[in-house]
Amino acid sequence: MNLNLLNNVDMKNVKLKGGFLGRLQELIIDETIPHQYGILNDMVEGVPKSNAIANFRIAAGEQKDKFYGMIFQDSDVAKWLEAASYSLIVKPDPELERILDELVELIGKAQEPDGYLNTYFSVSQPDKKWTNLRDWHELYCAGHMMEAAVAYYKATGKTGLIDIMSKFTDHMLTVLGPEPDKKRGYPGHPEIELALVKMYKATGDEKYLKLSKFFIDERGTEPNFFETEAEARNEKGLNIMQELGYKYWQAHLPVREQTTAEGHSVRAMYLYAGAADIARETQERELFEVLRKLWDNVTGKRMYITAAVGSQRYGESFSLDYDLPNDTIYGETCASIGLVFFAQRMLQMDPDRKYSDVIEKAIYNGILSGISLDGKKFFYVNPLEVAPEVCEHRVDHRHVKTRRPGWYDCACCPANVSRLYTSIGDYMYSVSREGEIYVHIFANNSANISLNDVNVELDVKTCYPWDGNISIDVNPEHAGEFTIAVRVPSWCLEPCISINGQPVNISENIHKGYVKMKRTWKPGDKIDICYPMEARLVRANPRIRENAGKAAIQRGPVVYCVEEADNFQGLQNIVIPRNVKFDEKYDKDILNGVVVVEFKAYCQEDWDSEECYSFDQNRYREVKVRAIPYYAWCNRTPGEMMVWLREEACIEI
Amino acid sequence: MNLNLLNNVDMKNVKLKGGFLGRLQELIIDETIPHQYGILNDMVEGVPKSNAIANFRIAAGEQKDKFYGMIFQDSDVAKWLEAASYSLIVKPDPELERILDELVELIGKAQEPDGYLNTYFSVSQPDKKWTNLRDWHELYCAGHMMEAAVAYYKATGKTGLIDIMSKFTDHMLTVLGPEPDKKRGYPGHPEIELALVKMYKATGDEKYLKLSKFFIDERGTEPNFFETEAEARNEKGLNIMQELGYKYWQAHLPVREQTTAEGHSVRAMYLYAGAADIARETQERELFEVLRKLWDNVTGKRMYITAAVGSQRYGESFSLDYDLPNDTIYGETCASIGLVFFAQRMLQMDPDRKYSDVIEKAIYNGILSGISLDGKKFFYVNPLEVAPEVCEHRVDHRHVKTRRPGWYDCACCPANVSRLYTSIGDYMYSVSREGEIYVHIFANNSANISLNDVNVELDVKTCYPWDGNISIDVNPEHAGEFTIAVRVPSWCLEPCISINGQPVNISENIHKGYVKMKRTWKPGDKIDICYPMEARLVRANPRIRENAGKAAIQRGPVVYCVEEADNFQGLQNIVIPRNVKFDEKYDKDILNGVVVVEFKAYCQEDWDSEECYSFDQNRYREVKVRAIPYYAWCNRTPGEMMVWLREEACIEI
Repeated sequence: MNLNLLNNVDMKNVKLKGGFLGRLQELIIDETIPHQYGILNDMVEGVPKSNAIANFRIAAGEQKDKFYGMIFQDSDVAKWLEAASYSLIVKPDPELERILDELVELIGKAQEPDGYLNTYFSVSQPDKKWTNLRDWHELYCAGHMMEAAVAYYKATGKTGLIDIMSKFTDHMLTVLGPEPDKKRGYPGHPEIELALVKMYKATGDEKYLKLSKFFIDERGTEPNFFETEAEARNEKGLNIMQELGYKYWQAHLPVREQTTAEGHSVRAMYLYAGAADIARETQERELFEVLRKLWDNVTGKRMYITAAVGSQRYGESFSLDYDLPNDTIYGETCASIGLVFFAQRMLQMDPDRKYSDVIEKAIYNGILSGISLDGKKFFYVNPLEVAPEVCEHRVDHRHVKTRRPGWYDCACCPANVSRLYTSIGDYMYSVSREGEIYVHIFANNSANISLNDVNVELDVKTCYPWDGNISIDVNPEHAGEFTIAVRVPSWCLEPCISINGQPVNISENIHKGYVKMKRTWKPGDKIDICYPMEARLVRANPRIRENAGKAAIQRGPVVYCVEEADNFQGLQNIVIPRNVKFDEKYDKDILNGVVVVEFKAYCQEDWDSEECYSFDQNRYREVKVRAIPYYAWCNRTPGEMMVWLREEACIEI
Repeated sequence: MNLNLLNNVDMKNVKLKGGFLGRLQELIIDETIPHQYGILNDMVEGVPKSNAIANFRIAAGEQKDKFYGMIFQDSDVAKWLEAASYSLIVKPDPELERILDELVELIGKAQEPDGYLNTYFSVSQPDKKWTNLRDWHELYCAGHMMEAAVAYYKATGKTGLIDIMSKFTDHMLTVLGPEPDKKRGYPGHPEIELALVKMYKATGDEKYLKLSKFFIDERGTEPNFFETEAEARNEKGLNIMQELGYKYWQAHLPVREQTTAEGHSVRAMYLYAGAADIARETQERELFEVLRKLWDNVTGKRMYITAAVGSQRYGESFSLDYDLPNDTIYGETCASIGLVFFAQRMLQMDPDRKYSDVIEKAIYNGILSGISLDGKKFFYVNPLEVAPEVCEHRVDHRHVKTRRPGWYDCACCPANVSRLYTSIGDYMYSVSREGEIYVHIFANNSANISLNDVNVELDVKTCYPWDGNISIDVNPEHAGEFTIAVRVPSWCLEPCISINGQPVNISENIHKGYVKMKRTWKPGDKIDICYPMEARLVRANPRIRENAGKAAIQRGPVVYCVEEADNFQGLQNIVIPRNVKFDEKYDKDILNGVVVVEFKAYCQEDWDSEECYSFDQNRYREVKVRAIPYYAWCNRTPGEMMVWLREEACIEI
């Protein structure tokens, strides 16, 4: 069966028009991206030094200095460049374009004559190139630079960075490959696999696809490349991540033999995304099936309700099925972004809302919590339960911050957030080979979609994610028969859709979560969608220990939390009553405008005594509890936060 | 106010006669101590190598070999010797005494001519002696050897080891002290402070007391000795335990300025015990008050219901008030033993059941869980909640074992358990300066207690801890007026006491938890105590997050748990019903004879689906749950275990 089912509609053809995602995109373009540029140029006070752009000047010989930063500091520049390119597509800006042009030129000057590009090694350790693919991120940085190259090209039509990366790829091909005189290696941190496929699709040059497939095929095979590489460095055995072994790098088995999500969660997500690209471009069903099982394992057994993944700090990694602690979670922002990349690719091969539901969950919850409302501060770790003094005093909680920092020594998350939301248009629509239009993500926007016979303009108006009413004005150039398939989110219990006032029979027309409306569409047609949103309780599988007897509040796609700032200390003592009634109201003055959910609940009373244990019954009082969207937490006074709350057991035997 | 209030009755005068503690003592004497001797001599298969006794032979020049083991391996021998000495007191054994005599002789041969005693440094690094008091445990080992010396003397009348340690002390006094040419140092791991006081009390020689006080007084003062010592070793800043700093060693402040229990929990307990000894021997009320506040902090805000202390793995340490997670607890067996040492000393200065209640809690729960029912396997870490696959896959749970190992590379806990239970007689009675007899701990035993004017024999019969009926036959040599003060455990809600059938008015006669019965006692008098034991629910202070909405079962002094072996997987889904009825029955065939507690409860049903989240209500079924004493957990098939169970909220507003 063919895996070429859908092609996503390019963001160039999708224009957000205000609304939640539109304003978020504007914030990132107007505030975050310039702010990040300042940080990369070390012009912002009060944040860790970056030196990321200076490193390129040093490598280019324009500045005399030592390299500074993480060994993968180059990737910060690449990701910023990618995000900035996307922002040019959304909002042309000659000044910004000029900055990008100069940056690309600088990158070209930092490139060595043989095509090698990596400022750390060029400047600090030129004799160590390619000696530690496991740890030293050369291919990782190259991958991000390739993604930037393709984005820059899409935004400006200029191939400067693509040319640079083409030359670097040629150089790589002299070092890496199946031939006896080359290294049969692959990157410790997957990333280049998906990036090479972007290069392939942009240029048509198969060398990129071959190299990507090579990386996917070699990974985890025997003899283990990381082991042989380590022996060559005179290392005895694995000297890092011993508790996880090669699972950390998803190199414990060949990719096609992997069945569970293991190891470092960002590496895993990028790997699965790249492997999905290869499955599609080479039409390999076996690999697709492997990835589908991995998808089911990640999202069915190892994913948080906020679409966070990565349940333990050690190795920033997965642990085991149903192990989802709320307070010691890792939940790296980058990992949820990687999950979206993975979802996107699976979706195009297998049109099923299970993928786009997760994209929606991530963009409104676990990724969005990674950026502050003002766009300038970021979370690496996204907990679902926080008590500040515990984070301060318990070393096993120290990875959980209670304020978003302005930057990090390892700054992978901020630019990842930027590039995702600036390119969010890429995730909203697809077109199938049969010329069906798929609508995955809802936002205020207009889209220009080319089918074989006709161009279709869609104008979508909605107050998503606060309101589930969506109107779609359908304007084909001329009347024509085609299908519009609209996702019905799995959280929606009573969806209604009508076309020009005529109800659509959803149950008869729904396929894998998409209502497929095939008709002769005419200019002026209107689809009215009503996905009622109301705050409801979600429960967790009883196998998830930490959530036994608890419930979370979700409204539409938005997961809610309670913060000390609105309530009190001791959130663990709140008990959601049996017949809780939620009061839901949009308040434009709170947290940049959110629907606030309030309800009467019980709260276990403090004890008079300070003692730890007592035979007495607990007492409760009534309280009013205010819940706000999880993504908006930690934008006010630091304090406790909790997503999963105790629920009064409703036991009817 | 005088701090010389009570003196404990020596174990020589207390003979356990079967019963729970008696049989436990027999097990340790007959099984555990010989087994441990075998391990120390590397004669037991399947456990890590010890080499502890061989190290002494090597140091004595009798064997040519390298030192093997931890830098403090000598302490394993010392603690074993101490336990074996106590066992001689309980059960004379000429063969065992001969072994001890030979061991003492060997230790003497391993002692260097100048008095120095430590096989690691004598054999491996003689030029490094006294260069790292913070880390290298020379004083710690000396302390344990001193405790062994005093025990050996008490058991045999032989002063051989006391003489060896006297010589070592003289040597120490040439190295350590306030004089300018000496080190104003103190041990990284407190232990010698309390041991020196034992030497002082056994010999009357004030040099021991002075040195102990010196250690207590110097600790944590400025300039920080560990810092200056580290600088002398060319170390830049603190190179271990940086997350805790000097709190790890309770050297962040002078002892008299410390207000909360911080750092490594065993170090803390031994330090507080040693400081309590100094407070008493020097009649320093200020120091006593400091320790009372520390006691209140430890037991009031940082102690588990099982009397475990130490809430985090990092540093095996305390974290903060009310932070008591059940699954990532450290709860080192040695720390609960140290807590008993601390309690014992405070009790003698301040007759208050708050101390003896904790001793009772520890000996029936958090210490006892550290030894298997067959006496040959030991726990270091004592969790209150376990799921084996989580311990296997989560690195932040790896310190929790799901089977007791036979031994450890760091083997401090096993011999600690042995020496505590063999000397349990020391903790059962005290006599005040006014000649009152205090009865702290109840067990089948007879005790010979000397008051000023009369000797009193007490014969106690009880089926404690399964039954709270205790009969005490009081037999003074002749009639005489004195007081017998009997502890009323704080868990007992309706105590009854009668003398010769006449009820005692408890409320009129109780003082700090002890019912003081002053009368003219005659031979043949009989005290009948009834402390009704029934399984009851205990709740935790609402500030203890992990226990919100949960309850534990306690019966008398025994805390209960549920194990998978008796129930099922998924213990987190059990809900104790509102009006739970407990069925309690002693079963001699289970777990060496325990009262089993059974009850009908609810259990959240498994989901049909494997998904993580759902809007559906949870469903419950009725189940029968069996709880067993916590100390007896993990003696059958490994599986889940839980102390704190969900409780149906009983909300009446």
